[in-house]
Parts: sequence; C-alpha cells; structure tokens
Amino acid sequence: MEFTASQIAAFINGKIIGDENTTITGVSPIESGEHNHLSFIAQERFADHIYNTKCSVLIVSEKLLTKDSYPVTIIAVEDAYLSFQVLMNLYMEMQGRKTGIEQGAVFHETSVVGENVYVGAFTCVSEKVKIGDGSQIYPHVYIGKNVKIGKNCILYSGVRVYDYCVIGDNCVVHSNTVIGSDGFGFQPTKDGYQKIPQLGNVVLEDNVEIGSNCSIDRGTIGSTVIGKGTKIDNLIQIAHNVKIGENNVIAAQAGIAGSTVIGDWNQIGGQVGIVGHINIGNQVKIQAQSGVNSNTKDGEILYGSPAINAGEYRRNYVHFRNFTEIVKRINNLENNSKDNPNE
Amino acid sequence: MEFTASQIAAFINGKIIGDENTTITGVSPIESGEHNHLSFIAQERFADHIYNTKCSVLIVSEKLLTKDSYPVTIIAVEDAYLSFQVLMNLYMEMQGRKTGIEQGAVFHETSVVGENVYVGAFTCVSEKVKIGDGSQIYPHVYIGKNVKIGKNCILYSGVRVYDYCVIGDNCVVHSNTVIGSDGFGFQPTKDGYQKIPQLGNVVLEDNVEIGSNCSIDRGTIGSTVIGKGTKIDNLIQIAHNVKIGENNVIAAQAGIAGSTVIGDWNQIGGQVGIVGHINIGNQVKIQAQSGVNSNTKDGEILYGSPAINAGEYRRNYVHFRNFTEIVKRINNLENNSKDNPNE
Amino acid sequence: MEFTASQIAAFINGKIIGDENTTITGVSPIESGEHNHLSFIAQERFADHIYNTKCSVLIVSEKLLTKDSYPVTIIAVEDAYLSFQVLMNLYMEMQGRKTGIEQGAVFHETSVVGENVYVGAFTCVSEKVKIGDGSQIYPHVYIGKNVKIGKNCILYSGVRVYDYCVIGDNCVVHSNTVIGSDGFGFQPTKDGYQKIPQLGNVVLEDNVEIGSNCSIDRGTIGSTVIGKGTKIDNLIQIAHNVKIGENNVIAAQAGIAGSTVIGDWNQIGGQVGIVGHINIGNQVKIQAQSGVNSNTKDGEILYGSPAINAGEYRRNYVHFRNFTEIVKRINNLENNSKDNPNE
Repeated sequence: MEFTASQIAAFINGKIIGDENTTITGVSPIESGEHNHLSFIAQERFADHIYNTKCSVLIVSEKLLTKDSYPVTIIAVEDAYLSFQVLMNLYMEMQGRKTGIEQGAVFHETSVVGENVYVGAFTCVSEKVKIGDGSQIYPHVYIGKNVKIGKNCILYSGVRVYDYCVIGDNCVVHSNTVIGSDGFGFQPTKDGYQKIPQLGNVVLEDNVEIGSNCSIDRGTIGSTVIGKGTKIDNLIQIAHNVKIGENNVIAAQAGIAGSTVIGDWNQIGGQVGIVGHINIGNQVKIQAQSGVNSNTKDGEILYGSPAINAGEYRRNYVHFRNFTEIVKRINNLENNSKDNPNE
Repeated sequence: MEFTASQIAAFINGKIIGDENTTITGVSPIESGEHNHLSFIAQERFADHIYNTKCSVLIVSEKLLTKDSYPVTIIAVEDAYLSFQVLMNLYMEMQGRKTGIEQGAVFHETSVVGENVYVGAFTCVSEKVKIGDGSQIYPHVYIGKNVKIGKNCILYSGVRVYDYCVIGDNCVVHSNTVIGSDGFGFQPTKDGYQKIPQLGNVVLEDNVEIGSNCSIDRGTIGSTVIGKGTKIDNLIQIAHNVKIGENNVIAAQAGIAGSTVIGDWNQIGGQVGIVGHINIGNQVKIQAQSGVNSNTKDGEILYGSPAINAGEYRRNYVHFRNFTEIVKRINNLENNSKDNPNE
Repeated sequence: MEFTASQIAAFINGKIIGDENTTITGVSPIESGEHNHLSFIAQERFADHIYNTKCSVLIVSEKLLTKDSYPVTIIAVEDAYLSFQVLMNLYMEMQGRKTGIEQGAVFHETSVVGENVYVGAFTCVSEKVKIGDGSQIYPHVYIGKNVKIGKNCILYSGVRVYDYCVIGDNCVVHSNTVIGSDGFGFQPTKDGYQKIPQLGNVVLEDNVEIGSNCSIDRGTIGSTVIGKGTKIDNLIQIAHNVKIGENNVIAAQAGIAGSTVIGDWNQIGGQVGIVGHINIGNQVKIQAQSGVNSNTKDGEILYGSPAINAGEYRRNYVHFRNFTEIVKRINNLENNSKDNPNE
C-alpha cells in the first residue's frame, strides 16, 4: 500500500498540519514507529511521541495539539483512536476478498456453492454441503457431509467441520480449529469404557468468530450452540451440548464442560474452567484461571478455583499471603494464654 | 433416516402404546424435542415431558408408565436409557463404514494397506507404513515413515502421525491431533539451549480414543505409551516418555509432564496438570484444575494446586472463604488480650 | 541402523570392555533395555543395570566401572550422558535431511525457493513467499503471502503461517501450530462486538523451536516477536503484540496475554497464565499453573494464582493445608477467653 497524507485525511475528515504529500507505506505502533509509516496518538501519555517518532504521518486527537507546526506531518481529528480504526477497516476492505476455486479443491457432485465464493487448494467439500455467497474457504479445509455454511464466512486453512454442523452468516473460524468432533461420552463397564454414540451437531449462529486450534464438540443428541456475535479466542474447549448465548467473549485456553448453559454478554477470562451441567447468567465476569463449579447470577464477578466473588477472593488472598505472620500471631496468643495465671 | 415406531420397537423389544406407524426422522434431547423426532425418558424427573413433548415417539421406562394411552406414541421398555443406547449404536452401525481410496491420496510404494480400508483425499502415507484391515483414514492425514496402524481404526481429517509411531486396533483419533511430535528436551549452554534428539516414538495400545487438537510427544528414547482402552478428551498434552495404563479417562486440557507413570482406571479432570517423573496409582480421581506434584496411592481423591486430599482441600477452602472473618476474630483476641490486666 | 561396538566407540573416543563386534540396531532407556540395543549409565543409582540389562552394549561413565569384565559389552567414557548425546546427534545427522519438491505441492509463480529445499505434497506456497536454503517444509503446510522463511528451518505437517509473517534461520515448528492468526481484539458496541482489524505479523527470530498445536497471534499493528533461541512446548497461546526475548523456555499449555514483554533466559512452567500489558524480567522462574498478574523483577521465583514469591507461597500453603486445625486453635483461644473471669 502507498497513500499520501491528503488521501488519508480525506478518508477520515482530518485536517493536515504539515506536508500533505508525505507518503506512507505501512503502519506502526507508536512505541516503535518506522520511517514512511503511519501511527496515531489518542492519549496524553503518548503525546511526547509527536516530537521523537520515526513515523512520517501521525493521526492525533485535536485536544493534544496546541502548536502550528510539528516535526512530523499531523492529521488532526476529534478522536484519533476511532479514526485510526475507521482507516484500518477501510484498508481491510480495500484488500478485497478472495474469490474463485483453486486447482486441487474437490467437491462432491451434490454440494452447492454460492456466488463469489473462494475455495482454496486441497479443500474437501463433501456430499450435500452448502456454502453461501461470498464465503472464503482457505486451502486444506475439510467440510463433512450435510454441513451448511452461511454467507460471507471465512474458514482459514486447516479448519475441520464434521458432518451435519451448521455455520451461520459472517462467521470467521481460524486455522486448525475443529468443529463437531465427538463429545467425550463413555460408559464404564467392567471390561472398559464403551463409547456413547455422538449423533448431534454444532451450530454457530451469525457473526461468531472462533480463534485457532479450538475444539467445539458435537452434541450427543441435539446441538452444541454458539450464539450470535459471540467471540472465542484460541485453544478453547467447548464440550458437547454446551449452549452459549449472544455476544460473549471467551479468552484463550478456557474450557466449558458438557451441557452447561451460558447467557449473553459474559466475559470469560483465559484458562478459566467451567464444570458441566450448570447455568451462567448474563454479564458475568470470570477472572482468568478461575474454576466455576456452580450456577451464577447475572452480573457476578468471580475469581478463584473454586470461584467465589472476586472482591472476596482478593481480600482473602491478601490474608493467605500473610498466613505465616497470622500463624505467628496465633502462637503468641496461645503463649500469652498459657502464661495467663487465670487458666 | 426414517423409521416407524414398530421398526424401532422391534430393535429393542419394546411394547408400543399408540400408533405403530408413527414415523421418525431424527432424534432430540427430551428438553428440546422436535416433531417427527424420537427421544427417551428414563428418570422420574423428566416424566412430565410425556405430556408436553413435541417429539412423535418416546422410549419410556415401564416403571414411569401408568396409563393406557398417551398424547404421544410410546415404546415401553425396561430401561429406556439402555434401550436408547442400543438403538443409537445400531444406528451408527447402519451408517456403515467408509471404504475405498479417494483420488488425491498418495502412498509410498513400500506402504502396505489392508482390506476394506478408507483413505481420503490428500492423505499422505509414507514409506513402510502399514494400515490394518477396515481402518478409515480421512482426508489430509499425514502418516510418517514406518508407522503401524492396526485394524478398524479411525483417524479423522488433519491427524499427524510422526515417523515410527504405533497405533493398535480399534483406535479413534480426532481431527488435528498430533502423535509423535518431539519431546521438549533442551540442554542449557551458555550460548543458548541445545536440542536433545528425540529418537523414541508413541505407542497407542488397542481401543484408545483421543480427541481433537491433542499433542502426544514421542519418547526421547523409548516410547510414550497410552494403554489399552484409555480415553483422552481434547486439547491434552502428553509429554515424552509418559506411560499411561489401561482404562483411564482424561478430561479436556489436562497436561502430563515427562516420564510420569499412570496406572489403570484413573479419572483425571479437565485442566489438571501432573508434573514429570512421578507415579499415579490406580483408581485415583483428580478434580479439575488440580496440580499434582507428588506420587499418589491407589484410590486417592485429589484437589488443589498443589493437590491434596479433596475432602481436606474443600474443608480448608471453606475457611479460606471466611479468612477475613477469621482475621477479625484474631484481632479481637489480641485486643482482649491487651485489655487483660494480667499482662 | 546397525552399528558395531567398535564403530560406536570410535565416534565417542570410548574404550571397549568386551566384544567389539557386538552389533546394535536401536537404543533403549536403561530401565527397559532390549536385546541388540544400546543404552547408557551415567549415574550411580542406575549402575546395577550393568548386571541385569537386556541391552547388548552400554556406554558407562568410567567412575562407575571397577572390574575387568562384565556380562555386557561396555564402552567406557568420561561422561556417559554427554557421549550418548553426541552419539544421538550424530545419528540424527546421519538420517540426512529431506530434499526435493514432492508432487502435489503448489507454488505461486512469484514465490522464491532456495537450494536444497524440501517441500512436501499438498503444501501451498503463496505469492511472494521466500523459503531459504536447506529448509524442509512437510506436507499439508499453508504459507500465506509475503511470508519469509529463513535457512535450515523445519515446518512439520499441518503448520499454518498467515500472510506477512517472518521466520528466521534454523527454526523448527511442529505439526498443526498456527503462526499469525488474528489477535483477539473486539470493540464492544451496543449491538455486539466489532472486530478490530489485525494488521501486524509474527516474527520468529533465529533458532526458535515451537511445539505442536500452538497459537501465535499476529500483532494488531506491529509484530508479535519470539526472540532468538527461545523454545516453546505444545498447546501454548501467545497473544497479539507479545514480545518474548532470547533463550526462554516455555512449557506446555502456558498462555501469555496481549502486549506483555518478556526478557531473556526465563523458565515458564506448564499451564502458567500471564496477563497482558506487563513486564517479565530476566531469569525469572514461574512454577506450573501460576497466574502472573504484575511486573516481575530479574531472578524472581513465582508460584500461585495470583503468583507470589514461590517460597512464601509454599510456606503459606502448608498453613492452608492445616487450616481446619488452625481454626480449632482459634476456637480454643476464644473459649478460653470467655472462661477468663477478667473479661
């Protein structure tokens, strides 16, 4: 990419201070700017970078600007963070979407592929699969039989979708995530564990994004469901028959055990574990590494393993940190008590 | 699939109450039944669903039935749960197994493939590999040189098996699991870490099932072994030279460090960590998220990080939850002690 | 492989005690030796194996040898452990490296591939990719556009490298690891989460090794960096814009959240979580399962969640284990206090 300061200013309705013909060829974080790169400053604490950045153009919030000239070309806007986001989204759109079927992709004759779809080399599309308009399926993806994929989805290289799973519109699934592997269901017998057939599927509703290397197991019977707009990070385990509502964010390496039901707008931290067969309400925040083993109400903030109220956990943990001191105090009390002639 | 109530009743020796010609085309969990679907009721607490289910046919345990007619077609059996399992297993068998070599699969000329084997598109079978009769290898699987795979195994799409690993009969490995990657062995030198060659392999004994996205590392020298009938969930780490016995179940995201030895019939919870070079006995239960750092005896139940007796952990955790209150009591005792004129 | 004792002794400058023509065809751990195998004894506590091993040849440290003859062919060296390592490294080198382009690999016409490179079947090399001399790319690897891979790297089957990522010389990446998936960045709006474009990349410096099934996310803008000589185990999460220095070792299933900066020569245990936006110094040791939520200084040893000084954590945990007993002592003190007539 190559843009001039005036082109960029036009996109975001900004005012140029400096040379409008300065060109940029990339973007940098403000802390590690590079020549011919663009960056932005939206907060007072980064304002000094205006004077020492190696970047060639900076988008800066107006409130941080007081002079008539600067050593770097400035684009003044109301909120530099938002304007930078707008720009990055525009840039992503300008990249365009991939289309066309690459040589080496294989399709069962009964599969149905929409308009403007991209299917990469060596991707396998099984019988009765439907792929909606505008979806992009990268190389090396496996799509099992009767899978439905909606419109404008992106499945990156190495994604596996087992038979009968359903993916809504505008979903993104990153590389090597597995959708629809068998739930972990075995019945003990005296000779060993006998497999319980896993006949359900996985349903991703619209606007779901799933990171790389996740495992979303199919329902034993019925569906494992990830609700509309929920975003899932990397290396996450979602067990069979879990139902997750809308607009949740789940951080990396969290795991949710079988049949648990999760509401809307929850924030689940990294490496959190949630046991099976419980209910998590709405707008719950679960701190990283917590282990949740009972139902939670709306708005709770949880921490610890097993998880309790986060404030309570932190207060108790302060005492835990002083435990050696606390035991000394008890020793002293006991010694005093022994010295006490009244006893 | 499409079956009549009378066909289903015949499979499981059930008695029909209602219309024997009712047809079903799928199965549902009882809580979210659908028209033309089959479900089951084996427990009192679900018995009300007989009167409000949308399912068309229900398999119900006899003891829950008292009337002559119901609003839904009933198949009465002694144990509805077991009968339903029998039916689901039958259904799985009726699906048949895949056979044949798909176009695009590549085989080294020295590889040996048994009878009735399925090998999917773009799967690579390296030199001297042996694949036993009836095994099903899905698309995009990589099988390194000298690997032996037994009879009636299923390797789903994206499984990687490094050189020299051995898989027994009737094993199932889900998508994107890696068998035989290098053990994590490096020797510190003043210039950096030097790799210790990892020359061993992985051995899966018969009837092992491994979920998706697991990493089972090869032995440094000798083998990493997963014993007969052991079932492993998703996203699990098994390090180099670990030896796991028979009929263990290991839940998602657990990790077992190098050279640890695990007996038989253990239950290891989700996100559990077990350090290297220790021994876990038999019939041990390890609660989710525990960290086991010392040898355990047969039958122990463990919890916590580091893990201790689970009952003990829970009792102590109750006090932890009251820690702020406990410290107040100590403060009071100290204040009383100061007020005490005897001191 | 097949070697005689005298060939092996020549490689490591050892002195044979016994039959120099004994042949070996493999290696075993000393605890489970096999006929015609080689093993080694470097420590007193394994010395008894000299008399009962099934191995045919043993490399033994001189200090453990006192007799003129043994029931097994011995190769005496100064340090048996080091000599065995030398031998294993020699053996690895003798295996040679793979070269050549396998049928089914696809290359964009603008990609540039060095000398003596191996590219396996069904690997996809996108536009403007550069692969350095001597690198080995196994089957089913996906390499996005503008990716640079240095010299003498190994990428095992199923590795995914997203657009614009950079891999240095002598790097090893194990199967199904994903390099450059999107950072987990979403902005909440009242209608749901809006994706923040992830425009950066991942940079692996020279001599980095990464295990299987890891996720290394690209920077939002700028790079996620893994420094020279750092070794990463399996199933590890490295979030966007993390900067890791040189010669760190990170054990399996650890996770490092966004923008955290890590120095050199740190040891990070299995299942450790490190929050975002903090600094970890140098030569820090973090015990398995710890949760680090604040900056650490050089040389600290940490344990717990949240992590504190490891010695302190262990001492406090001893009290936690006795908590029920401690509460009884407080009860007693309170009872005594009540009995005290002075109150």
